[in-house]
Amino acid sequence: MAKLIECIPNFSVSKEREPEKYQALVDLAQSMPGCTLFDAQTDGNHNRSVFTLIGSPEGIENAAFELTKKAAELIDMNKHEGQHPRMGATDVMPFVPQSRDVTLEECVALSKRVAKRIWDELQIPSFLYEDSATRPERRNLAKCRKGQFEGMPEKLLQEEWAPDFGERKIHPTAGIMAIGARMPLVAFNVNLDTDDLEIANSIAKAIRGSSGGFKYCKAIGVMLEERNIAQVSMNMVNYEGTPLYYAYEMIRALADRYGVKIIGSEVVGLTPAKALIDCAEYYLKIENFSCHDQVIEYHLIDMK
Amino acid sequence: MAKLIECIPNFSVSKEREPEKYQALVDLAQSMPGCTLFDAQTDGNHNRSVFTLIGSPEGIENAAFELTKKAAELIDMNKHEGQHPRMGATDVMPFVPQSRDVTLEECVALSKRVAKRIWDELQIPSFLYEDSATRPERRNLAKCRKGQFEGMPEKLLQEEWAPDFGERKIHPTAGIMAIGARMPLVAFNVNLDTDDLEIANSIAKAIRGSSGGFKYCKAIGVMLEERNIAQVSMNMVNYEGTPLYYAYEMIRALADRYGVKIIGSEVVGLTPAKALIDCAEYYLKIENFSCHDQVIEYHLIDMK
Repeated sequence: MAKLIECIPNFSVSKEREPEKYQALVDLAQSMPGCTLFDAQTDGNHNRSVFTLIGSPEGIENAAFELTKKAAELIDMNKHEGQHPRMGATDVMPFVPQSRDVTLEECVALSKRVAKRIWDELQIPSFLYEDSATRPERRNLAKCRKGQFEGMPEKLLQEEWAPDFGERKIHPTAGIMAIGARMPLVAFNVNLDTDDLEIANSIAKAIRGSSGGFKYCKAIGVMLEERNIAQVSMNMVNYEGTPLYYAYEMIRALADRYGVKIIGSEVVGLTPAKALIDCAEYYLKIENFSCHDQVIEYHLIDMK
Repeated sequence: MAKLIECIPNFSVSKEREPEKYQALVDLAQSMPGCTLFDAQTDGNHNRSVFTLIGSPEGIENAAFELTKKAAELIDMNKHEGQHPRMGATDVMPFVPQSRDVTLEECVALSKRVAKRIWDELQIPSFLYEDSATRPERRNLAKCRKGQFEGMPEKLLQEEWAPDFGERKIHPTAGIMAIGARMPLVAFNVNLDTDDLEIANSIAKAIRGSSGGFKYCKAIGVMLEERNIAQVSMNMVNYEGTPLYYAYEMIRALADRYGVKIIGSEVVGLTPAKALIDCAEYYLKIENFSCHDQVIEYHLIDMK
């Protein structure tokens, strides 16, 4: 049975602005033993790139460190500009369980080992965020990153903002990082047959955990300008705790109040099979189904 | 990218009646390179066992031959008794594509190579069935097997029943086999809130391909005596051609005529993830979804 962990490091560099630095990170990621570079996204406006690696716990732990080391060598945050908020050369580094025998707790432990090693060997401090957070307000990446690279020296001196690993000062060029573990996230959007953004906003507010809705659902309303329709755009941050069909059915019920119907939905990027199979199980009323025992792909993964 | 093929040989032997012979086949299956024995079911009343192996095309091709050879050494069909229809020591041997880069056509070609080698080296004749069939009536296993082991010597002399490989006579102890390729099959049953078997029978008849319903759906009505409810019991023999939700929604519509509702369903045994993900895609109205690109498990399988 193969233990698989995903790591999605975000680097403050883009192919569009600094192709050689970007490529050096891609090359290193592709050369790391025990893991595979699944995907590398780059955005010139954000001046940021997002890598997706999957591998064994050992392979991922090592790759996470080596990539952070290389990014620190290549990137000087004092010269970094881009639209996306950022505080470090490697800005964010989440670890996600991707096989059934890996627990979130294992990923939390791994994230702490990586954060410790990054401080010990590279002198880059870090906040532990998401499920690795040591206090509630640090679960939220946006709160950790508030002030960004330029504001961090001052922020770290505040009583409650000592790094989890490292001293109260940033690395002079690589800044500071957020490191943590989280469940797989599914980006799930539901389209409404209305051009009234207020309706999508109102539904988003009702269903998101932060304002009393589903605990593991983040939601905002957005306009799809090309189609002139409003959308409820969601991050389902724990599809086992809050399944996708909870959100879908609640949106349907709430939209009905306005005489509005769901006309479609989208899953953006990758999703674990189970997030969708759980929905099939609900809609087909399947009794006594064991996803991990009955779905052949889980056996194929375990077989290797 | 790993090419994976499933082979499900059915042997005319059971652990309950002849544990040593059964175990010899299990041991051989477990020792074959390039494939894994997923599952071994045995039934003493049927005096029959069903193995599920998954592996590379080469591994599966070799294992299929070696297991047939071993079964022919161990089993004398002249002494075989059991409730299940059968015509050979290795009775049936289907090959099923189990990764996205394996086509049904590849499995058809593989089935013919195996059938040829079994005749050439073991002198066991075979019918090609399912998608390997050389004429329409041979697609159906029941038609190939009609007459069973005892009736085969006479049947093979009939104009239209020459084996696809081999001469018009059975192997004296191992009989004759059905060898072929087919799509993965999903056993899907839908439970109705009625104790009237006739309603389930009527719905089953309406939805099955043989009487004008869905091409890739086989269906019968059965009573679940313990729960005193009627069930539409189906084999979905090509879930891409006839998705599970076609059957479910049609059963719902037809049951409504009798004032009957669906109270649940079940998936028996293994299913490919996509058979259920396609249902989620339908019920959640997901637009532009690419199962193979967006579902992480497919990448995990390809990665190895």
